[in-house]
Amino acid sequence: MSEHRPRVVIIGAGFAGLWAAKTLAGAPVDVVLVDRNNYHSFFPLLYQVAAAELEPGDIAYPVRTILRRQDNARFRLSEVQGLDLGDRMVRTDRGPLPYDYLILGIGSTTRYFGVDGAEEHSFSLRTLDEAVVLRNHILRRFEAAEQAADSQERRPHLTFVVVGGGPTGVEFAGALQELINGPIAKDHHGIDPSSVSIILVEATPRLLSIYPNRLARYARRRLHKMGVSVRTETTVASVDAAGVTLGDGTRIDSSTVVWTAGVGGDPVVSGWGLPTSQSGRVPVLPSLQLEGYPEVFVTGDLALPQAAAPMVAQNALQQGTHAAGGVLCLLKGDAPPAYNYRDLGNMAVIGRNAAVVHLFSRWAFQGFPAWVMWLGVHLLKLVGFRNRIAAVLSWAGDYLFGDRAARVILERADPPPPQPGRLPG
Amino acid sequence: MSEHRPRVVIIGAGFAGLWAAKTLAGAPVDVVLVDRNNYHSFFPLLYQVAAAELEPGDIAYPVRTILRRQDNARFRLSEVQGLDLGDRMVRTDRGPLPYDYLILGIGSTTRYFGVDGAEEHSFSLRTLDEAVVLRNHILRRFEAAEQAADSQERRPHLTFVVVGGGPTGVEFAGALQELINGPIAKDHHGIDPSSVSIILVEATPRLLSIYPNRLARYARRRLHKMGVSVRTETTVASVDAAGVTLGDGTRIDSSTVVWTAGVGGDPVVSGWGLPTSQSGRVPVLPSLQLEGYPEVFVTGDLALPQAAAPMVAQNALQQGTHAAGGVLCLLKGDAPPAYNYRDLGNMAVIGRNAAVVHLFSRWAFQGFPAWVMWLGVHLLKLVGFRNRIAAVLSWAGDYLFGDRAARVILERADPPPPQPGRLPG
Repeated sequence: MSEHRPRVVIIGAGFAGLWAAKTLAGAPVDVVLVDRNNYHSFFPLLYQVAAAELEPGDIAYPVRTILRRQDNARFRLSEVQGLDLGDRMVRTDRGPLPYDYLILGIGSTTRYFGVDGAEEHSFSLRTLDEAVVLRNHILRRFEAAEQAADSQERRPHLTFVVVGGGPTGVEFAGALQELINGPIAKDHHGIDPSSVSIILVEATPRLLSIYPNRLARYARRRLHKMGVSVRTETTVASVDAAGVTLGDGTRIDSSTVVWTAGVGGDPVVSGWGLPTSQSGRVPVLPSLQLEGYPEVFVTGDLALPQAAAPMVAQNALQQGTHAAGGVLCLLKGDAPPAYNYRDLGNMAVIGRNAAVVHLFSRWAFQGFPAWVMWLGVHLLKLVGFRNRIAAVLSWAGDYLFGDRAARVILERADPPPPQPGRLPG
Repeated sequence: MSEHRPRVVIIGAGFAGLWAAKTLAGAPVDVVLVDRNNYHSFFPLLYQVAAAELEPGDIAYPVRTILRRQDNARFRLSEVQGLDLGDRMVRTDRGPLPYDYLILGIGSTTRYFGVDGAEEHSFSLRTLDEAVVLRNHILRRFEAAEQAADSQERRPHLTFVVVGGGPTGVEFAGALQELINGPIAKDHHGIDPSSVSIILVEATPRLLSIYPNRLARYARRRLHKMGVSVRTETTVASVDAAGVTLGDGTRIDSSTVVWTAGVGGDPVVSGWGLPTSQSGRVPVLPSLQLEGYPEVFVTGDLALPQAAAPMVAQNALQQGTHAAGGVLCLLKGDAPPAYNYRDLGNMAVIGRNAAVVHLFSRWAFQGFPAWVMWLGVHLLKLVGFRNRIAAVLSWAGDYLFGDRAARVILERADPPPPQPGRLPG
């Protein structure tokens, strides 16, 4: 509002952008946070929406509400169309937005490594929209299976291939198996749970590469015990509308291929005139500044720092905080310090009572204690009081009754509702 | 499953169809409940989804879960394409479905009385999909208003016209005003709540025609006090993309016209070879049977009985129960009895602490006691334990904090997510 305060534009209301905005609370700047959605979504629990365990609203919260008490921050619902680094200007679908400082945190997209048909014929799990699409598709598989003429027609509907043995693949495969063993078994008397196959495919020799091997072995044992078939050292040759062909020639007929294997920068940024690496990420200086543009910071999954840092939520929020601190340094005439990732730990949940936790790169837990720790940390982290209660209830119900609340197939596309022409005002 | 038991096909999992299915629990029949959605939605609270007070999942529950413990009932997710009354066959997108008895309960659709542009340019509020579309549109209005160049451009975004002073129109106008006075005022510092207009337009001289006049006057006073402008004896001449023109020539520029004024039978049934009245409803015998087809019962909003009955949830569930009883009579060789609507009462909520209740066509309450009664009855009625808890929490939060949980604009259409070609399997 003030004309004399420098304006910090932050693009992206993910962990990096949101934490950057919060760090600037009380600072003598005007913050404008831009996102194409009006909500922040809690990415680490996205797979639970896809597995019909949580409602989309449980892990999303309006950005304006998060920033409600921060006087120097405004939110702007806009799609960014380009940057003008020389003129310090963001081009949006709602007009230009000049800045004095810019913090970019637009996240990452799925990479397919050139695997034939993968992009067209598999489901991605990186946005709330994608999670809802996948959830609806999965729930429809069981309806279709009930109406199939014979077991041959039924099989592809009941075969789920998850590509990628990282945290998302492992967590999603486990959650999907629990959905099937629990609510689906109860609601679909016409479907024998043992006729459902979940196949987790990983190219390297082991799951969960960022965890110690002991935890990876535990995760594999646990998934196997639950009924998930784990195939390591297995590549995907191609994906088509009827299933996947593996690197060894094995054919799997499946209506549902979920691709969690690759992640890279958002290709949109190369159109914005930013330098990008082969993986589509933007190389940055140790301080996270863009070379040649000291007023621009690149954070989160989009940034490719010289010191490697994992593409996880924790790193994104540390980088967002760091970039905001860098802006404050520049305001005082100081040089922004170098960024150092502090690995507080990683955790992944495999199923009820089963998780793996690796703290401070040192302590490794598994099983029930790890699951309790996972639950506690995620409850504390979930943004917004109301969401936390809803998520706790949902999880408690899931735990006590083995049931799920979120099994309503709500898709606006089918049948199309009336959409008055003026919708995108 | 048994070949010897007569099959009762029920079309529609609304109040009529669901109560018909439940009434047949334990009877010597096979029940097949058909719906194009996999969930039952609690219609009386739909307006709260549109006003961002409840999440869609709070008022929807999977049909299979509701019928989980009913051994003689199966659910079939299908779109009905036609009937073959002579051959006792339902044609669906998943193939034909023969029946011995048929209970139709597909509900109603919005009627526009030939008002020019009304169907194309106004929002309807009869399905969960429509409620979500309207909610997203409303939330986007405030984002657009914040970015408008001047007050002239801003005004249509902040002007909401609700057509129809029945329960849906009154309840929605009240809930929308509370959304604006509460969360929107808190989150949108750039919007002065007093610059927002909600105009409730009703053609007859009074609101809530099925209630005693005292309660209608109370509702009007209360809405006025909250800030809603009520115009009775006012017709709508036309609706266009920029607003509405009233019968007296008054022009209202508005981006949001919500049409709650008319309700009629679903026009699809005339294509099914059923007789229909001018309002699109199907005339039935006093027993709710279709003339000439004693094995067919028509229930809920679709049915036009000789003794008038209101198109409300209570009537639909009584008719569903009655039709199921009629099938049991026919099985025993008895003639189905005539249907009589028992008016247990009506209730509508106007705002926090403010409702109207009319019990047994006799006792009228208003204000806080009516609101408490409304809350209690709706909690008891909501299908499914989990939904009830979520709704209570949502309402409690709304009441205590004047806040709302459901303000996330999640629309799959914008931007379009990848939709693998095999989706509608």
